[in-house]
Amino acid sequence: MRRSIATVCLSGTLEDKLAAAAAAGFDGIEMFENDLVVSPHAPAEIRRRCADLGLSIDLYQPFRDFEAVPPDVLAANLRRAERKFDVMAELGADMMLVCSSVSPDAVDDDDLAAEQLHLLADRAAARGMRIAYEALAWGRFVDTFDHSWRIVRRGDHPALGLCLDSFHVLSRGTDTAAIRTIPGEKVFFLQLADAPRLHMDVLQWSRHHRLFPGQGAFDLAAFVGHVLSTGYAGPLSLEVFNDVFRQSDPWRAAVDAMRSLLLLEQDRLPPAPALSGHAFTELEVSGPEVANALAAMGFCHAGQHRTKPVQLWRQGAARVLLNEGSGQVSALAVESADPERSMARAAALHAPALTDVSLPGVAAPDGTAVFFCSDGWLEDFPRTGEHEDAGAGLVGTDHVSLTQPFDNFDEAALFYRSVLGLTPELATEFAAPFGLVRSRAVSNVARDVRISLDVALLRRGEWAPGVPEPQHLAFATRDAIASAKEMQARGAPLLAIPDNYYDDLDSRLAPPPDLLAALREYSVLYDRDEHGEFLHFYTDVLGSRVFFEVVQRIDGYAGYGAANAPVRMAAHRRLRLSRG
Amino acid sequence: MRRSIATVCLSGTLEDKLAAAAAAGFDGIEMFENDLVVSPHAPAEIRRRCADLGLSIDLYQPFRDFEAVPPDVLAANLRRAERKFDVMAELGADMMLVCSSVSPDAVDDDDLAAEQLHLLADRAAARGMRIAYEALAWGRFVDTFDHSWRIVRRGDHPALGLCLDSFHVLSRGTDTAAIRTIPGEKVFFLQLADAPRLHMDVLQWSRHHRLFPGQGAFDLAAFVGHVLSTGYAGPLSLEVFNDVFRQSDPWRAAVDAMRSLLLLEQDRLPPAPALSGHAFTELEVSGPEVANALAAMGFCHAGQHRTKPVQLWRQGAARVLLNEGSGQVSALAVESADPERSMARAAALHAPALTDVSLPGVAAPDGTAVFFCSDGWLEDFPRTGEHEDAGAGLVGTDHVSLTQPFDNFDEAALFYRSVLGLTPELATEFAAPFGLVRSRAVSNVARDVRISLDVALLRRGEWAPGVPEPQHLAFATRDAIASAKEMQARGAPLLAIPDNYYDDLDSRLAPPPDLLAALREYSVLYDRDEHGEFLHFYTDVLGSRVFFEVVQRIDGYAGYGAANAPVRMAAHRRLRLSRG
Repeated sequence: MRRSIATVCLSGTLEDKLAAAAAAGFDGIEMFENDLVVSPHAPAEIRRRCADLGLSIDLYQPFRDFEAVPPDVLAANLRRAERKFDVMAELGADMMLVCSSVSPDAVDDDDLAAEQLHLLADRAAARGMRIAYEALAWGRFVDTFDHSWRIVRRGDHPALGLCLDSFHVLSRGTDTAAIRTIPGEKVFFLQLADAPRLHMDVLQWSRHHRLFPGQGAFDLAAFVGHVLSTGYAGPLSLEVFNDVFRQSDPWRAAVDAMRSLLLLEQDRLPPAPALSGHAFTELEVSGPEVANALAAMGFCHAGQHRTKPVQLWRQGAARVLLNEGSGQVSALAVESADPERSMARAAALHAPALTDVSLPGVAAPDGTAVFFCSDGWLEDFPRTGEHEDAGAGLVGTDHVSLTQPFDNFDEAALFYRSVLGLTPELATEFAAPFGLVRSRAVSNVARDVRISLDVALLRRGEWAPGVPEPQHLAFATRDAIASAKEMQARGAPLLAIPDNYYDDLDSRLAPPPDLLAALREYSVLYDRDEHGEFLHFYTDVLGSRVFFEVVQRIDGYAGYGAANAPVRMAAHRRLRLSRG
Repeated sequence: MRRSIATVCLSGTLEDKLAAAAAAGFDGIEMFENDLVVSPHAPAEIRRRCADLGLSIDLYQPFRDFEAVPPDVLAANLRRAERKFDVMAELGADMMLVCSSVSPDAVDDDDLAAEQLHLLADRAAARGMRIAYEALAWGRFVDTFDHSWRIVRRGDHPALGLCLDSFHVLSRGTDTAAIRTIPGEKVFFLQLADAPRLHMDVLQWSRHHRLFPGQGAFDLAAFVGHVLSTGYAGPLSLEVFNDVFRQSDPWRAAVDAMRSLLLLEQDRLPPAPALSGHAFTELEVSGPEVANALAAMGFCHAGQHRTKPVQLWRQGAARVLLNEGSGQVSALAVESADPERSMARAAALHAPALTDVSLPGVAAPDGTAVFFCSDGWLEDFPRTGEHEDAGAGLVGTDHVSLTQPFDNFDEAALFYRSVLGLTPELATEFAAPFGLVRSRAVSNVARDVRISLDVALLRRGEWAPGVPEPQHLAFATRDAIASAKEMQARGAPLLAIPDNYYDDLDSRLAPPPDLLAALREYSVLYDRDEHGEFLHFYTDVLGSRVFFEVVQRIDGYAGYGAANAPVRMAAHRRLRLSRG
């Protein structure tokens, strides 16, 4: 199917938007009126520019408050429409979106609405154009797709059809199966947007919080299925109003947008090969601080890369590569049943492939390398002969936690969902000492690949510490207290947790006194959910932004201890301040 | 009255919050539990710290989900409460806030709630403590103040009283006059928060969008009046959950908070002397670009400061001072009926007085100097003898427009409201090419002092142009077309507006063809509201961030042409790009 994007989805001038949409591979655009109005380029010039970029102008929008009005208002509205038809003719656009009226001039009269839309369609048809009528979720009288369809049917004109917008339909919670009863040739246009489930005024929800398909809570696949079953053959077109996308790099946002459509048509994508765990995580470090910490945590410098200055540190199935660099998580590697097919899927989803690396991999939105490994990768790391002792009980990697750049949080979740085939978990929000934080993890079904994504709810300013964003690597243990005890004995730089936390924990969750005493002694934190329990502890921040966590999941605890994150953040902050 | 602030209002660690509250002159705090939990300091240590800072701990909060539960849950809840009483005893806090339950364990039984709260109050009283019961607006069964009062009355214990929170009461829109029937000794605590009127889930509204009194839409004065009429003699205490304040400098936020309480008790403030117009606006400039532009706009270099390198440029009653510096609006000056009393009020409101200046003045939140002038200030500027010609029809200053630093938008509106005695107008929001912008003006009754404040809805990142924020000075004319024509003839650097804008204007508002032609010819923009019409035009950005606007208000047009701002922003952006 052809793929389009409304210019309002992207930031910048119209030139920026068109170039970005074309670069991301879109076939067409919806021309959002305001983008044209502020442009210094005449419509004919924009038509040429679009043609040069290989973009069609599939829709001109929005035309508001047209129908079901008294005769004098109708005359004015027709004059207004004719002016817009003039612009459309110059643009080479042959379809106009007409939104259901929110005007105080309108009356609640479907026959009148149908009659006047018929008239408008007649004017449009005279110029080879068509009218796509859309029910806004907050339309004054017409606010559901079935109501707009009744009016279009009654309007009975070949140049009058429906525009279906997933947000307007799904935000109302109406049954969408009735879409299948609409003849496909009367569905003139299909606009797609996802959104998180929010309990707020639908207009504000729509104008600020729409997302690209796959980033929110709507069942877009079912919706599109219904529409396609009618025989609709127009473009899949994105119309997303989002505060973050409005101010972020349009080239990146356009790729994110394209990825959302590709995922929606995922039957055409190479299937995502099964993943089976974190193969390794690579850290760029300067100085011995991280290596010393790993040693004190019971890791062994088990291997050394054949040709590069890269060390393999290992404990159980937890593997960390240390490379020289600026102190951050530079790569995460997952075990793929078929790395080649993983890469094929990634390529189909416009993930930038990495070059000059020895493993197949792509760059995630925050720049982290994501590698797809099969068993063989360890052969590049001959054993050092260093003694691998009993360690401190770590058995593997539980999750990698990456605080995302402010503009790329939803993009990152969609990236991991689509490229790696992971499933987004529920987003959570918590109050950190320096502002609210939103957190969302993506994981595979077996839960042996987990990536946790965090972002500040507002981009941080000068007061709140923010950049560089903290990142961490969480290892799994079967006994957090024993691991903490062993690591403490080995001198690991574990993070001290305040007594106040344990007093509160006693009051809140009342763990058994023995356990509470042990948690307190070893600065282990505790949480509980409807499945089970969670014990976890942290190291200090090592270098500029990386720290480690050790976690023990009991009876299928599903979360990440978000309730305890503020305690950790305050403790880290204190340490940084005390070190100047 | 004593003034308190909940620690949750402020960003940072508990140490930051306490220091900031004390520095701003608060008498006490509400200890928000999470701030204590993440602190490494024992409660007794915090008690000492507060005492050293002159802060009492007026409330410990929140204690959740206590009342109307089965016996086993009650036992657990009492255990939980006893632990918190232990902490409060160490802190030296003698009042605990108990919020109405949202727990699935609770039942809808006022008698049971009252009986269990009585029991809790008994336990508290045994330790010399008291319980303040508060109806959350989203409480499961108890969500109005009158309901909480019925339960407290029925609970009938001297250590059981009410906490009234303005947000929970006013967000429900309930009649507040009934507050006057509550005996003052049963109102244990008063929490104050303002908020904008938003149509959303009340929990989200409360957790993200509260504001300090005077920054939102609630009638806090009437509410406080009702509460004080009961004989309540406890503190006025702020409890504001706000995404921006949570991550902004707590020392500044605490002063903003204190100012909001001082304004609420404004009978004790020196009244704001009447203002009667913009005396002048001062620009710091480097190079001749601004002076040349002013000359081409019909201004005359009319005076020169006696001792400083400051030029007075004048046209009609529009006066601009040019000083050497970094290219920004450095000062705005208003004509005050009594500058000395203006300064006394400003001092009472903790506005930082400027020193080393020849006029009485204070620093606004964004650093702009605000001077209070009487007639005499012009005497410092002897005439240059330069020829003052007919000019280009400018008659005065219409408004000064200052884009605010992201963290200081609400603070700035409250600053101008309280210190200058201006009235905030309705906030508007519009989509600029690089993200949404919120705009709010403050003005005096005569509307001859107007200051327009803008802010990006999200702090700008790398893609969107943002810093330095644009600022501008708008002059008034009685004939915008004639002024534009004259300025164009004189070679002023006027901003060209695209043809597309006029095509759209014709369609939208259909101005008479003659007018439309003139608007188009001279790049004048047009708007209309329920009062009248607005014609306005702009210059290019001169230097890094300042530009001029010329406006003509017809028949009391009240706005600032926000609908046209995106056109201006796109045109400015284009010019900047074309100049590299």
